[in-house]
Amino acid sequence: MEKMKKYTVAVVGATGAVGQVMREVLIERNFPVEKVRFFGYRREGIELDFKGEKIVVEKLQEGCFKGIDIALFSAGASVSREWAPKAVKDGCIVVDNSSAFRMDVDVPLVVPEVNPHAVANHKGIIANPNCSTIQMVVALNPLHKEAKIKRIVVSTYQSVSGTGSMAIEELINQSRAVLDKEEIVKKVYPHQIAFNCLPHIDVFLDNGYTKEEIKMVNETKKIMEAPEIAVTATTVRVPVLRSHSESVNIETESKLTPERAREILSSSPGVIVVDDPANNRYPLAIDAANRDETFIGRIREDFSISCGLNMWIVSDNLRKGAASNAVQIAEILVEKELV
Amino acid sequence: MEKMKKYTVAVVGATGAVGQVMREVLIERNFPVEKVRFFGYRREGIELDFKGEKIVVEKLQEGCFKGIDIALFSAGASVSREWAPKAVKDGCIVVDNSSAFRMDVDVPLVVPEVNPHAVANHKGIIANPNCSTIQMVVALNPLHKEAKIKRIVVSTYQSVSGTGSMAIEELINQSRAVLDKEEIVKKVYPHQIAFNCLPHIDVFLDNGYTKEEIKMVNETKKIMEAPEIAVTATTVRVPVLRSHSESVNIETESKLTPERAREILSSSPGVIVVDDPANNRYPLAIDAANRDETFIGRIREDFSISCGLNMWIVSDNLRKGAASNAVQIAEILVEKELV
Repeated sequence: MEKMKKYTVAVVGATGAVGQVMREVLIERNFPVEKVRFFGYRREGIELDFKGEKIVVEKLQEGCFKGIDIALFSAGASVSREWAPKAVKDGCIVVDNSSAFRMDVDVPLVVPEVNPHAVANHKGIIANPNCSTIQMVVALNPLHKEAKIKRIVVSTYQSVSGTGSMAIEELINQSRAVLDKEEIVKKVYPHQIAFNCLPHIDVFLDNGYTKEEIKMVNETKKIMEAPEIAVTATTVRVPVLRSHSESVNIETESKLTPERAREILSSSPGVIVVDDPANNRYPLAIDAANRDETFIGRIREDFSISCGLNMWIVSDNLRKGAASNAVQIAEILVEKELV
Repeated sequence: MEKMKKYTVAVVGATGAVGQVMREVLIERNFPVEKVRFFGYRREGIELDFKGEKIVVEKLQEGCFKGIDIALFSAGASVSREWAPKAVKDGCIVVDNSSAFRMDVDVPLVVPEVNPHAVANHKGIIANPNCSTIQMVVALNPLHKEAKIKRIVVSTYQSVSGTGSMAIEELINQSRAVLDKEEIVKKVYPHQIAFNCLPHIDVFLDNGYTKEEIKMVNETKKIMEAPEIAVTATTVRVPVLRSHSESVNIETESKLTPERAREILSSSPGVIVVDDPANNRYPLAIDAANRDETFIGRIREDFSISCGLNMWIVSDNLRKGAASNAVQIAEILVEKELV
């Protein structure tokens, strides 16, 4: 019996909020790791545990990716822009969680439940979509296949962990300061996030949208391979630690009843329907935390148009929105022997 | 010189979250109060301060409204349903903050910036709209007059003070419990509200919507006197203490640029435009608290349709969303000598 092939896997940004979850998910999903290497750009030198083994966080340097099969990058767009091409040159396949390459025509942008086939077209880099986009397309793609989505109006309720571990700390510290009537310290966000909502994620563009909002528009079309879908987004940071929630309104070409939508979604990959309002059951950020699935509920007919639905979509932004989706992409590479 | 006429004013539900603000607003806006009387249904007998005078909270009883000119009710729909008609019989004009009479054809539903003329049609009761509806129509009515709104898709980010003072306490206590890793106690909401979002405000109806969502649909049409406007809403409770935020998408009949919308809104009553994203200026719940105005920002073209705008609307739910709007209605009664 042939021994299962195993791989040398790197996590770049291993000490960050997503990097930490990537390490957990690689173990949990039993990814065939021969050897693991961790890279950091701020806290190199520290030791991290991986399956009981102490792994030293290395500094990124020329040639450091030699011998590595798959590198999961989650250290921000500027690190990816500089180091991902070098990793590819060193013979590595990069699954990049940053926004650096997502819209490049040569780079597949993949959500395994939606467009796993796109992985095969990679030229060294595969992009992991934006967290708020991933959970939305997991939910909407099955409905699109059935009824053709014409337009999406989405408003998000995004947790601070999407910004990183410093933002988690900021929300915790500010919350305590508000409760204790002490001074609020702002380091990560331009305004107080505790007990407040900031309609501001990523930077503002000239057209008045944030980059996060435009990501949701463009990435949705690319992943769903449906440039004709009209999308408009308002992305909002809320004082939640983990998991993003989304209020999503869709207009479809053919009529889709809430009942049929629930039926379709119940048998769709990566989806759990939680939709029993009579018993106060609907998706919640705190329930989705530490889960890989996307939770969908509050599915109801939009009576303002002839073919429309409203729904509430929740998923763990660090897992399905980042780490788990990246590891799932790596799993496709292994399954399809593309690595 | 004739002395300015003064009135005997009652606040029903004076000890609640809205009642407390009603007392503040009556003083701040210098409402011509001759005598004030406070009624409670849970904490009668306690003394409340009004302009330095101690006022005992009275119990509601038959005939208690005799001699009162205007009664501001904010003690829930069931109290209003029972006592508002009795108050009217006793010769009182009722401004009712509950949902009890809002959709009655005989009851004007008034936002002074939008439909002040409707006050004149009262038959004893004037209804104060739902908090999330008030701020939305203050913002949208001027745009509707210019470009005719065809459809509204709104998602709300509503603070716990909308539920009442017990909910404020619950958010504070649960937040502390989460920070201290202690047990969460749930009394007001069916799920943890601290660091979480609940897509659930008021009770669920058979069609899958909450009553709050349907209020936004129906009340908007009634106040704007525009039954043809299509409205769909998703109302969400967020861990914010005060002020509601709303992500509002509108489709208009004629094209309205963001610049023109800003221009219109800048000269509209009760509105403050805060829309300078380059300098991180946009409306925030914590900034709107204790203000009477509705703050509007993030105004941008919706590129998913030919005539559409997205915007972010924030207002203090206890003030403009309840107490201040009610007192403004009472001011119209005085001004137009309808009392």
